[in-house]
Amino acid sequence: MLIARVIGTTVSTIKDETLVGRKLLILRPADIDGVPYGKPYVAVDTLDAGVGDLVLTAHGSSGRQTELTKNRPVDAVIMAVIDHLETNHEVTYRKE
Amino acid sequence: MLIARVIGTTVSTIKDETLVGRKLLILRPADIDGVPYGKPYVAVDTLDAGVGDLVLTAHGSSGRQTELTKNRPVDAVIMAVIDHLETNHEVTYRKE
Amino acid sequence: MLIARVIGTTVSTIKDETLVGRKLLILRPADIDGVPYGKPYVAVDTLDAGVGDLVLTAHGSSGRQTELTKNRPVDAVIMAVIDHLETNHEVTYRKE
Amino acid sequence: MLIARVIGTTVSTIKDETLVGRKLLILRPADIDGVPYGKPYVAVDTLDAGVGDLVLTAHGSSGRQTELTKNRPVDAVIMAVIDHLETNHEVTYRKE
Amino acid sequence: MLIARVIGTTVSTIKDETLVGRKLLILRPADIDGVPYGKPYVAVDTLDAGVGDLVLTAHGSSGRQTELTKNRPVDAVIMAVIDHLETNHEVTYRKE
Repeated sequence: MLIARVIGTTVSTIKDETLVGRKLLILRPADIDGVPYGKPYVAVDTLDAGVGDLVLTAHGSSGRQTELTKNRPVDAVIMAVIDHLETNHEVTYRKE
Repeated sequence: MLIARVIGTTVSTIKDETLVGRKLLILRPADIDGVPYGKPYVAVDTLDAGVGDLVLTAHGSSGRQTELTKNRPVDAVIMAVIDHLETNHEVTYRKE
Repeated sequence: MLIARVIGTTVSTIKDETLVGRKLLILRPADIDGVPYGKPYVAVDTLDAGVGDLVLTAHGSSGRQTELTKNRPVDAVIMAVIDHLETNHEVTYRKE
Repeated sequence: MLIARVIGTTVSTIKDETLVGRKLLILRPADIDGVPYGKPYVAVDTLDAGVGDLVLTAHGSSGRQTELTKNRPVDAVIMAVIDHLETNHEVTYRKE
Repeated sequence: MLIARVIGTTVSTIKDETLVGRKLLILRPADIDGVPYGKPYVAVDTLDAGVGDLVLTAHGSSGRQTELTKNRPVDAVIMAVIDHLETNHEVTYRKE
């Protein structure tokens, strides 16, 4: 899984019909302090996450192992919202 | 999923027989403002997307979760055409 | 899928027994003008492609969705030989 | 598989319900001497590994081939704790 | 598949129980002349390969398509030992 920051939303009228009603959020991978780096990607939100949240995303076929993503053409899902991260016995990120 | 810009088309006479009639488009990954970056890749179009469209592509086995790509040797599919992208509460891309 | 140039062949006496008789070609990813870049990889040829051909390769489990690669320990397959590529309404590659 | 160093832990109250009770650790890929490099990622721990351990992680659908990860939206699992690594006939890492 | 050089071995007492008796080798990706580049990774050996051999590895779910790796949490397998590589009609690597 990747640690990632939710940075935005996508709107699509034309899409695979199995994706109607699914929320597709824009994320960027983040470091252990929650600071984003690198290029954006898009994942399905199944946990009502919001812009600014630090989350974990699962990729590939693992992204389809939820009720909302099963058998659908999606390759990434938000499967946890992070409360805090602890690295080498220090808290490096805490949700505000 | 990746945000990507459709930049072209491929023509192949010799191909896996299950791909006859499938449209294979050339894309480049794009940033939150729709500007492409990086190297090209090819995805199956199931939504009648055109050159210039900004789309989302699903990869790997997730690329085979549509009627047109099921059980076929393809690893990327266009599963949404983007109307607009909003990042940190600002519109960063809007379809013309 | 990746656009790729076939650059060579591999010979292996010791291999998984399900791969006897399979042709394993060396490729490098290529740009929209057919010029290769980056490191080599190996894919199964199911289309009688030859050194110099520009092709498309499908990766991961998608590489096993052909009669010749099904259930075999291979993760890339040549599934199309490219005739030409057109980018932004110009032909950027044409097979000689 | 990647050689990786366990560097921390994640805490999430809101997560996919199938992940309750699963331990999600933060890792960084490591070289043959056990020194970490590159960006962090998160994997499920099935072996009671601890911070500081050098481990192997399996990715993608392979990360779901354990009793604790089967059918769950996770894409990486710790499947071995490394005792030592030997490279070119020299021990390059040994667990303390 | 990747061309890769076997550079070492891993020893793990604590591991997924389905991996008891499996040989996990350390490799580095290699170029068409057999010279390694980039970071190490680990693959299951099913062909009795040894340190110094140039091999091919299959990744992801394809790494589980052998008798020894089926249903196990492993994502890479050695499925061929390379005798020689020929690139642009010249031999660029030959096993000693």
